[in-house]
Formats: sequence, structure tokens, C-alpha cells
Amino acid sequence: MTVQQINPKETVSTEEIKRPTFPLDMWYVAALGKEVQDKPLGRTLLNHSIVFYRTPDGKVSALEDRCCHRNLPLSLGTIDESGIRCGYHGMLYDGTGKCIEIPGQDKIPSRARVSAYPVKEQGALIWIWFGSEGNEEPTCEPPNYDVHNDERYHYDGDVYQYDAPFQLIHDNLLDLSHLGYVHLQTIGGDAKTHMNAEMTVEAEGDSVKVVRKMPSSTPPPTYTAAYPFKGKVDRWQEIVFHPSHLEIWTGAVDENTESLDDPERGGFHLKGFHGVTPQTEDTSFYIWTQASNPTSNQTEIMKKVIEQTALTFDEDKVVIEAQYANMKRFGKKRMIDIHVDVGANRARRIIERLKNS
Amino acid sequence: MTVQQINPKETVSTEEIKRPTFPLDMWYVAALGKEVQDKPLGRTLLNHSIVFYRTPDGKVSALEDRCCHRNLPLSLGTIDESGIRCGYHGMLYDGTGKCIEIPGQDKIPSRARVSAYPVKEQGALIWIWFGSEGNEEPTCEPPNYDVHNDERYHYDGDVYQYDAPFQLIHDNLLDLSHLGYVHLQTIGGDAKTHMNAEMTVEAEGDSVKVVRKMPSSTPPPTYTAAYPFKGKVDRWQEIVFHPSHLEIWTGAVDENTESLDDPERGGFHLKGFHGVTPQTEDTSFYIWTQASNPTSNQTEIMKKVIEQTALTFDEDKVVIEAQYANMKRFGKKRMIDIHVDVGANRARRIIERLKNS
Amino acid sequence: MTVQQINPKETVSTEEIKRPTFPLDMWYVAALGKEVQDKPLGRTLLNHSIVFYRTPDGKVSALEDRCCHRNLPLSLGTIDESGIRCGYHGMLYDGTGKCIEIPGQDKIPSRARVSAYPVKEQGALIWIWFGSEGNEEPTCEPPNYDVHNDERYHYDGDVYQYDAPFQLIHDNLLDLSHLGYVHLQTIGGDAKTHMNAEMTVEAEGDSVKVVRKMPSSTPPPTYTAAYPFKGKVDRWQEIVFHPSHLEIWTGAVDENTESLDDPERGGFHLKGFHGVTPQTEDTSFYIWTQASNPTSNQTEIMKKVIEQTALTFDEDKVVIEAQYANMKRFGKKRMIDIHVDVGANRARRIIERLKNS
Repeated sequence: MTVQQINPKETVSTEEIKRPTFPLDMWYVAALGKEVQDKPLGRTLLNHSIVFYRTPDGKVSALEDRCCHRNLPLSLGTIDESGIRCGYHGMLYDGTGKCIEIPGQDKIPSRARVSAYPVKEQGALIWIWFGSEGNEEPTCEPPNYDVHNDERYHYDGDVYQYDAPFQLIHDNLLDLSHLGYVHLQTIGGDAKTHMNAEMTVEAEGDSVKVVRKMPSSTPPPTYTAAYPFKGKVDRWQEIVFHPSHLEIWTGAVDENTESLDDPERGGFHLKGFHGVTPQTEDTSFYIWTQASNPTSNQTEIMKKVIEQTALTFDEDKVVIEAQYANMKRFGKKRMIDIHVDVGANRARRIIERLKNS
Repeated sequence: MTVQQINPKETVSTEEIKRPTFPLDMWYVAALGKEVQDKPLGRTLLNHSIVFYRTPDGKVSALEDRCCHRNLPLSLGTIDESGIRCGYHGMLYDGTGKCIEIPGQDKIPSRARVSAYPVKEQGALIWIWFGSEGNEEPTCEPPNYDVHNDERYHYDGDVYQYDAPFQLIHDNLLDLSHLGYVHLQTIGGDAKTHMNAEMTVEAEGDSVKVVRKMPSSTPPPTYTAAYPFKGKVDRWQEIVFHPSHLEIWTGAVDENTESLDDPERGGFHLKGFHGVTPQTEDTSFYIWTQASNPTSNQTEIMKKVIEQTALTFDEDKVVIEAQYANMKRFGKKRMIDIHVDVGANRARRIIERLKNS
Repeated sequence: MTVQQINPKETVSTEEIKRPTFPLDMWYVAALGKEVQDKPLGRTLLNHSIVFYRTPDGKVSALEDRCCHRNLPLSLGTIDESGIRCGYHGMLYDGTGKCIEIPGQDKIPSRARVSAYPVKEQGALIWIWFGSEGNEEPTCEPPNYDVHNDERYHYDGDVYQYDAPFQLIHDNLLDLSHLGYVHLQTIGGDAKTHMNAEMTVEAEGDSVKVVRKMPSSTPPPTYTAAYPFKGKVDRWQEIVFHPSHLEIWTGAVDENTESLDDPERGGFHLKGFHGVTPQTEDTSFYIWTQASNPTSNQTEIMKKVIEQTALTFDEDKVVIEAQYANMKRFGKKRMIDIHVDVGANRARRIIERLKNS
């Protein structure tokens, strides 16, 4: 493991960031489980058009989103005991993509089938495996995320679609110094505090961890609305990047009351899960849950936390989509790096390595 | 004439269906006469931008939809005694496309003219001739359609635009087995009844005739709303494909009361005219009339019949457009044929032959 | 100077008008001053994405509309005492495009800068200089426009975006004979009067002047609403084309009361400024002010004049955009010239010469 202090320097970002392809042989977040209930869900991920559906036994399956007869999207069909039925002529498919019924016809051709994708549901999340040729079957389990099972936390989430490549969302999440400019009304607070915060960046394997501490700072509106802080607070942001998602743990304790190095410290906590899955080279899904630990008025405070989180992501969406539109507009114009980019650049190197492995 | 029993088999559809060109030297349905009254109608057919207008003497003309001066669409202009007048500088064109007045200028240049198209109005329909080079003038009369003149029938109609190639509409109409899945709420009824119906397919010249009989079946909602059936019915569907349009005769009689082979049988009848005219390679116009023979409450029942027909076509439009979007998405992926495709595949061969003749 | 009587003849317009490039080394109208107040304005002109902003000292600056860090449009940022601040990480730029602050970082890389454009504000207008390579700095002053400073006149204005190339707007303005067909409800009046009006066209340097006189004509609705005419009027239209804008002076006096050659004549006057600035090859900005000289009920009449002017331009926008859409549809089809095109064709030759100089 390496620990690195920030050394601001200027480098040149090439415009290959504009049209990334995607790392394979890994699990991506496909959907929230609550999205796949009694109706099929059609969703394009990594350029694959996929239908997700849940049979009455609770099992989630993922197939190529087309009937092999005349290409109607299966996501326009209906769910049956044993699979999904096309809404045009009633062909029925099981979870392996095999056609198991053609109404009015006895013989089912052997090539009457569509592709199936490995999926696993864990906690609030549905994961999907995208393998390279020869690695169609998963070689590992999906990443674990304990917070959804931690009874101290309440959570909810939502899915956003971005007109921007997935790595611009990584950049945004790995650099929370933008809170002071983009999110002034919610989780931001004083801009200078963010920009001058002590920051460390650690990299290990396919992960990057960015930790920022902001002692003796003014709590932002979302914090004071959710927790009875007495005045100034010691605040932290801890971001862990994985190729499929980021975990962001932020919060604050009353100033000088607890160590920010104590993993069991009290105060107000937000634990965010941020699944970032490419839809196409130019568009992405952002599948998030936000958890918190309100000690009273739980329903009301959680409602507020989720509202404020969604508002924050609405603000980010505006910025990230405007940024990408402008990147296309200005083409190959050089961009310069500043001190906040260290974590994001490490994540870019990891994605680059995984794409070529 | 050949008569063929269904022999389900799998074949491979190539993706040339994706970007068809069009048969020429034939009449296509351009519009309903009621669309071309006191205002010009601009409509693109077979990639030609055309303005249709009716002069006060009742005659319908069709010209290239541009003024030869500065290309303003003539469909933005106004109708004059002797032709159509451009809405920019007032140039007036007669039905042959010749400019016959330039306001403020005595001399009219000989090349001040635009193309004209042969059109004929018959019953509720306006037909247009598209000829290949050297065949600009019609070599035959437009197809006849007697139902519009049959006093036993009442009818009305409408025009739909589809974001899909015209042959996908042929496919849909030639295979009414989809009624059980797509049109459950209107003209469908039991899906299995449709899929297991006895079906014959006959081809002769440029026509294909598909006949399906469904004895002893439950009448669908539209039927029972329009006719006092006593219980189960003997139901039929008779579809005749022509390159420019399809005639679909469906209906039912009370079970075991009349022969479905008697052309003068009673009961409830629907006689649909379905003009299918390419707009571009990717889009189409669907110009339809629906006729019926209500014996009482004619106004009310016809209103209901037209509403239900429109609702049915709304459902088809969703399916056909989703199908085409998915065909583009999945590109060259093979499609398989099932038993219902016999009529549609015959029609495709006719279109293919006409395109190359 | 040449004076030319109209000699109608037919010529062939080539389709190079479809995708013009633009004359350089000249001032264009960028915006109305009232558009650039306390918020940045992002606007694309001649394919350049530009942010305009006014610092608290009143000075207007124009920069490339991107932050050099991660390309967020600066027009999403905020205005500071000394420049414009990016809304993502707070980088601050001065009016020369130099980054003068990176929050949280001491060293500012020398290449942390974006391009700046010369701008000048005069009267109601903000002008921008677009120079060719080596002529980045202005070689002259922006065109003067006295009417904004003439106390006899009241004015207001607005900005329209057109989905059409800038030269189609020139064509429209240089030929006011279309008033009788396009603007019948407002400033039009009798179509034949317009088409048969005596017209002279003069060209000098980069200017074209078209003068049309319509003695003894019926005043159109906008005129009678604004001025107490007694009956018929002697009406004039005087259009002066410059490469960056047109000045259009129209009006009327009571019939046979004053000479239309007297520059100080009374009656009802409209003095229009029409800045026409390309946005892209296919789209344009139309930045206009309309001035008039009401002698009573000034507020009410000016409100009416501006409303009617806007309504007129709404009508023109429909025509010009439909024309351009049709020009693209019909591609290389030849267009013919008529008598009204003399002024417009002269203007086209000037633009052509300037593009190649």
C-alpha cells in the first residue's frame, strides 16, 4: 500500500477519456431490487439491451431484451410462472434464455433462444456479470456491502441516468472538494474549508481511498437539519473507489469530542453506496443508496436525508452533463490537473489497466 | 393458384428488411379525401415531399412541395381558384406544376415550375402514382374498393404515422394471431383460440389471402358491444394483401347458425381498408378506414367501432415501433420464423419481386 | 456608386448557400446589453462557445466558455469582483482569460488560461470581434448606430434564434415585398401594392441600399394603431445592408402632404436595427431593436409597436426555418430568381467577397 501527500502539478489529460470502453470480467450494479418486482425492467448496460424480471418464486433473471422471432423487446411482455412471455405472439422463455413454448406450434426450434446473463441479488442490489469471451461465467462473488444489513442504519435509494460517460461520475465522487461550489445549499458548507482540507490518498489493488478531514468547521444545512450539533464540528469524508462502485462515508462529531480515527465514533453519519455502471460509451447509470443513523424522529429525518441526497445528485447531474457536452464541443482542447485530481487520476489508471487486462 | 397448409419450420430472415426501398410503377394511398379540403396538406411519401391541395372545383392536385423561387414549402401557402400560391412572395402554380403568376413581374421564366404527380380520388381515398423513369404516367387505374360505396356499410377512418418501415405493418396485418396477446382488451379474445385456429394461405399474382376460422369461440369485447350475440360464436378473419394495401374482413355469427363459407352470411362484420405507404425507408403512413354493418343504434355503434379500432391500432403502433427500434439495436441478430409467418413471408417475396422488376 | 433599375431575369442560385462559412476580421453583434447583467450568458457565435459576463465595475468581457480544468462551461459559474469563477472547483478567471485563483492551491500553472475575445458595448449593443489568424485584435471600431442615442426615439428589442443560416435572414430583410403575403395581419397591407412598388437598389463598398416607395396606399394595421392617419398614406421602406447588420427605416405620411425625399419628414417612423450573427453554419442569432417616434401615449404605443414587431418576426421565423428545412430536403434542386431578389443577391456577393478576402 502507498500513502501519498498531494503534490499539485499540471499534467495533460488526453481526450481518450471521451469514449471509453469498459472493463470486463467483473460484476456491475444492474438495478435496485425494488425496481424489479412484478413487471419486467428493460435496461441497457455496457451497450447490452437486457430485460430483468422476477418470477413468482422471487428469482431474478436477465435475458437479452428481444424475442428471437421478430425482435420485440421482451420487456414489453408479461411474467409467467416459469419465465417471461413475449407480448407479440406469446413465446415463452425460461431464465436460461431457452424458448419453452410457442403457442400454436408443437416443435420448438433448437435455436429459438436468446442470451442470458449471470445475475445475483444481494441486499438492496442486483448485480450482473459481464465476462469477456471465454469468461461468460462469473469467476468470483459480487462485492459485499454490509450497510444494507446493519441494523443501526436506515437507507433508501434511487437510480439516475446520466448523459455522460461513467468515469466523469467517478471523478465527481472521488473529489468532494466540489461540495463547496456545487452543493452550497445542501451538504456543502464553506468552500475554502473544503479546498484547504487535509487530504490523503491511498491505493491498493483495484481500490483507491481518499480521506479528507475538516476539523472545526461549520456544519452544512443537511447536517444541522438531521442532528443536534452544538456548534462547530469535526467533519470527515472517506471515499473508497472500486471499479464497480464507490462507498462514501461522511459525517461529523461535535468539535473536539471524539477522534476522527475511531471507527466506532458517534455523531452524524452518512454511508452512501454509489454504483456507477456504463449504459453506453456516452451515458451511464448511477444507482445509489444513502444510509444514515438518526437517533430520533427516524422516519422524518431519513425522509429529509434522502430528499437532500437526491437534490445533491440533481445538482451533480447538471454539472456532469454540462461538462460532457462541453468536452464534446471543445474536442481535443487540453485540460489541466489541479490538486483535487489525485484520487480521480489513480482511479482512471485502474480502469485503464482493467480494460486492457 | 396455390393452396398451402401450414408447415411450421424455421428459416433465417436476413436483415435486408431493415432498409427497404420501394416498388414503383404502382398506385399508393396518399391520403383520405377528408384530409384535403380547404387547406394544403404537406406529406412525404416514398421520400418525395409533396403538397396535396383541392381547388374550389373539387379537383385534387399533387405537386412537389416547394416553390421554385426560394424553396418555401407550398404547403405553407394558400389555395387559389386556379392553383396554389406560395406564402412568401405569392407565386401561383397550377395543377401541372407550372408557375402561372409572379406578382409584380410580367415575364414568367419557362423553368419556373415544379414537378406534378398523378393523383386520383376514389371513394374516401386519394391515390398517387409513383412511376420509375419512363413510366411517369400511370399505366393502369388505382385499385377499386367497393365497401366505401356499399350502402349496407358505414365507415370512417384516420391516418397514422409509424416510426417503422412499411413491411413491418404488412407483417402485423397478415398475422392476426397477435390479437390474443396485443389486443386482449378489444378485438382479441382468447390467445390459444387464435394460435390454434385453422389457417389457409393462398397466393395469386401480387396478392396473398390468409383465412383463419375460429368456430365456437368467445366473442371479444368490441364484438359484444356492437352486436347482440347470444353466446359462443363462429368467428372468421380473411386478410387479402395487395402491394399498396390490405383488405381485412373479420366478423362472427352465432355459433352453428350459418356457414363461414357463405359470402352473404349475416352476423357482425368489420371490413377494414389498410393503406400502407412508405414515408421514408424508416417510417410509414398507415391510412385506414373501418366499415361495419350495425343494424340498430348505428351512430352510437359506429362511434364505438371506430374508437375501438383506433385503440387497437394504437396498441399495434407501440409494438411495431418498439420492434423496429429493437431491430436497429440488435442489428444482424438472426430471427426465426414460426407458424404464423407464412402469409407475411409470401408478401415479402412479392414486394421483393416488384422492387426488382 | 451605382444606381440600378430592376431588370427581372432568371439566374441559377447554387446550393453553396446551404453551408456558408463566415466573413472574418469584422465586428458582429453578440448580444443586447440588457442580456448581460448580473449573470453570465453562454452563447455560441460563429461556432465559438463563448461566455459573456459583466463585472461589478460595469465592464463586459467575453471568454471561451470552458474551465481549463475539466471543461465545465464557465457560463454555469458565478461573477466575482475580478472575473468569473467556475461552478465546479472555484477557479477564477480575469477578463484576459488568465486563471488568477485556484482555491486550495498556491501555484497557478502558466497554461491555466482560456481564450478571450475583444468586445465593445455601444448603446444597447454588445459587439464582438472575430479576427482571422494574425488579426486577433480589432483593426477598426464597431459600426455606429445613432438611433439608440436619439432622444426623439423610444426603442426596445429582443434576441431570436433561427434554425437557418444567417444569409436567409439577409434575404428576408432585403426584400420587404414579402410583407404582403407573410405579414398581412401586422405591417403588411395590400400584396399587390408591395409587389408593384417602385424600387431602387444602390451598392457602395460593403453596403447595399434598397428603397421602395408606395404612394397612395392603405396603411397597415400596426400603422393605424400607432398614428392618427387621416386616410391613404405615402409609404416608404429604406433598407441598408451591412455585413453585420441591417438598418430598416419604414414609415408613412398622410398622402400628398410631404416629400418622401425629405429626410426630416414627419409622420410615423419605425427605425429597426437588425443584427444578424451566425451561430453555426445552420443556425443564427437575430438581435434586434425597434425604435419609433410616438407623439402621444408613448408607453402604450411603444408597447404595441414592440409587440407587433415581435409578432412579425415570429411570422418570419416560421417562413425562414421552413424554407431552410426544405432546402436541405430538396438538396441541389435549382432555384430561380425573380425581380425582388436584386438587393439580396448584391448582399450575397458582398458576403462572398468578404469570406474570400
